[in-house]
Amino acid sequence: MPDTAPSAAATSPAEPIATDALVIGAGPAGLFQAFELGLLGIHAHIVDTLGHAGGQCAELYGDKPIYDIPGLPFCTGQELVDRLLLQIKPFAPDFHLAQEVTALAALPEGGFAVETSRGTRFAARTVFLAAGVGAFTPRRLKVAGIEAFEGTQVFHRLHPSDDLSGQRVVVGGDDAALERVFALAEAPQQAVLPQSVTLLHRRAVLQATPERLARFEALCGSGAARFQVGQVTGLRTEGKRLVALEVTDPEAAVTPLPLDALVVMLGLSPRLGPLAEWGLALERKQVPVNTATFATTLPGLYAVGDVNTYPGKKKLILSAFHECTLAAFAAAERLFPDRPTTLQYTTSSSELHRRLGVAPA
Amino acid sequence: MPDTAPSAAATSPAEPIATDALVIGAGPAGLFQAFELGLLGIHAHIVDTLGHAGGQCAELYGDKPIYDIPGLPFCTGQELVDRLLLQIKPFAPDFHLAQEVTALAALPEGGFAVETSRGTRFAARTVFLAAGVGAFTPRRLKVAGIEAFEGTQVFHRLHPSDDLSGQRVVVGGDDAALERVFALAEAPQQAVLPQSVTLLHRRAVLQATPERLARFEALCGSGAARFQVGQVTGLRTEGKRLVALEVTDPEAAVTPLPLDALVVMLGLSPRLGPLAEWGLALERKQVPVNTATFATTLPGLYAVGDVNTYPGKKKLILSAFHECTLAAFAAAERLFPDRPTTLQYTTSSSELHRRLGVAPA
Repeated sequence: MPDTAPSAAATSPAEPIATDALVIGAGPAGLFQAFELGLLGIHAHIVDTLGHAGGQCAELYGDKPIYDIPGLPFCTGQELVDRLLLQIKPFAPDFHLAQEVTALAALPEGGFAVETSRGTRFAARTVFLAAGVGAFTPRRLKVAGIEAFEGTQVFHRLHPSDDLSGQRVVVGGDDAALERVFALAEAPQQAVLPQSVTLLHRRAVLQATPERLARFEALCGSGAARFQVGQVTGLRTEGKRLVALEVTDPEAAVTPLPLDALVVMLGLSPRLGPLAEWGLALERKQVPVNTATFATTLPGLYAVGDVNTYPGKKKLILSAFHECTLAAFAAAERLFPDRPTTLQYTTSSSELHRRLGVAPA
Repeated sequence: MPDTAPSAAATSPAEPIATDALVIGAGPAGLFQAFELGLLGIHAHIVDTLGHAGGQCAELYGDKPIYDIPGLPFCTGQELVDRLLLQIKPFAPDFHLAQEVTALAALPEGGFAVETSRGTRFAARTVFLAAGVGAFTPRRLKVAGIEAFEGTQVFHRLHPSDDLSGQRVVVGGDDAALERVFALAEAPQQAVLPQSVTLLHRRAVLQATPERLARFEALCGSGAARFQVGQVTGLRTEGKRLVALEVTDPEAAVTPLPLDALVVMLGLSPRLGPLAEWGLALERKQVPVNTATFATTLPGLYAVGDVNTYPGKKKLILSAFHECTLAAFAAAERLFPDRPTTLQYTTSSSELHRRLGVAPA
C-alpha cells in the first residue's frame, strides 16, 4: 500500500511546531489515537523512533499471525499496521520518524514543549504517550571507550546523510548485519563504494538462507566483501581517532582489524528512555492512568497502550484501541471546553462523514 | 457465509443446561465475549431474543457503514457480525435464539438459574450480560383487551409452529407487514394457504419499492391478497373469541373487519425487560460495573457493551471488545481460582493455537 505510507514531515524548523495533539509512538495505539482524534476534529503529529510506522507490531511480529483483533479472524502484524494506516488516511497525521523524544516539559501556559533526537520541536497542547514497551533503540556494543566515537566512526543506526564512501567499513552483527553488507557492497554503479566492507561475526557459521549465503560468498569471491570471525574486545586509537578493533576469535587469539568506520547491527531492544525523567509517577516502568480519561498525573498528558497501567490492565492491542478512544474524548474536552464533545456514530453522523471524506449515506 | 451461521441448540431439556458461562445477547459484544472466553478455555452458551446473531448491529444497521472498528476502515453491520461469527467458530458456542431471558436468580451454591421465554433453562456459573439497549421486542398494538388473544389469535411474532392455514388473516403494519403478506399469500403449492390475507395499513399510500408494489398489486388482482386502509381502534368479540377488528379510516369512518388471526408487524423496539427485576442497581437503565473486571454488584454476573455504565463510558463497539476481554479474565479467575489466568498472546502461545485450532507457527 504505497499510497498509505506515512509522509515525512519537515524536521528542525526554527520555531516549534504548534499542535493541538502530539502522539508519541506510531504503533497500533498511536495510529488509532490519531484516528479517534481525527473523528473529533483534532489533527495530530506522530513521532516514532523507528523509520516506519507500526512499532512492535511491525518490528517484532510483522510477518507473524494475530488472531484476537476483533473482526479480523487472522492478520499479520504488518497487515494490521497497513489497515490502520489506511483507516487514518482521511485525517492525514504528520509523521516524524526515526527520532526519539528526548525532552518533554510542561509549559507555564499549559501544554508541553517536546523535542526529539533530530531537533524537531513541538509546542503541543496535549500529548498522547503511546510508547509501548519503550523506544526501540539499537543494542549497544559494550567495549570501553567506544562512546567517544559514536556518530563519527561508530554507528548504531545509519542515517541517509552518513557517508561511508571510500572508507574501510566493518559491519558487526547477525542477520541485519548481512543485509547492511549487501547494501554497502552492492551499491549501484554511480555510487562511490566503501574501500572495503568486512562482516564481523562472532562465529564461523552464519545463520542465513542458502540464497543469502551464496550472495555473500559471491561478494567475498569478487573482493567486494570480507568475512572475519570474532568479537570486539578492545579498541586501538591514534590521537582522537579509532584506527583498529581488537578482535578475539573463538580460539582466544587477538587480531587487530584496521578500519575507518564500524557499523554495529546487534538488533533493537526497547527501553523507556527519557520518559523516566518527565516527572511521571511510574509503577514497574509503567504509567498509571485514570480509566475514565487515560490521563496521567501531568495535566494534558495521556498514556495509552502497553505503556500505561491501571487495575485490570491487560497488554492487548484491542484494549489500546479503547484507551485511545476515551483519551481522545477527554483531550477534546480539555482542548475545547466550550464545545460539547458529544458521542456521534460513524454510521449516521454527517459531520463524521465529512471528516472521514465519505459520501453521506 | 452459511457455514458460520449459528447452530440452533436443543431447547427445553428436562434438566437445566449446566454451563461455566452464559452470554445474554448475540450482538458484537456477546459474540466477542464468547471469543475471549474461548481463548481462556471456557465454553459459552449464548441466548438472544432475535432469530439470528448480530443484535442491533444486524437489526438496525446491517447494510449501513461503520468506519470506526479498529483495523476495518469500512464494513457494514452485517459484515462485522459475519466476521465475528467466523472468528468465534473455533470455540463453537451454543446459540439459543428467538428467546428472551425471562428469569435470572442467584443460586445458593453460587451461579445463576436462568430461564428463557421458550423454556430453556440454564444453571450458569457465570453470566455475561451483553444485552445492548435491551431485548428487541415487537412493538405492541395498543388496543384495549388485545392481550387476551395474544398467541391464539393475535401474534406479534410468528413461530414456525403457528399454523394460519385456512384462516382469515389480517396483517397490520408497514414494510415488514408487506413482506409477511408475501410469505403468507405466496406460499408454495403444497402448503395450505390462509383463506384470505388482508394488509391493513394506516394510510392509502404504501411506502415500498415499485417492484414490491407491483408484486402486491398482482396478489390483490388475483384475489390472493386484499388491502384495507385504517387503524385498529376496537375489537369485536363473541364469547372468548375475537371475531372482527374495528377499523377507523382516515375519514374517521369505522368499519368492522372480520378475521380469525391478526399478525401485528409494527417493528421492533428495544426494552430492558425483566433485567430491571434481577436485583441489579441500575443507573438510567444501565448497569454500573467495576472497570477492572466489568463485574456488576451480583457476584458472577458481568455486564459488557451498551448495557453497562462506568465513568468515561462511551457506547462504542470497540469499547465493548475491551470490556468483554477484561470480563473474561475476571470470570476465569472466579471459575478456576487455582489455575493461574496468565495473559498469553495469540501470536506466540501454542496453548492458544491449540484452542484456536491453528497450526503452530
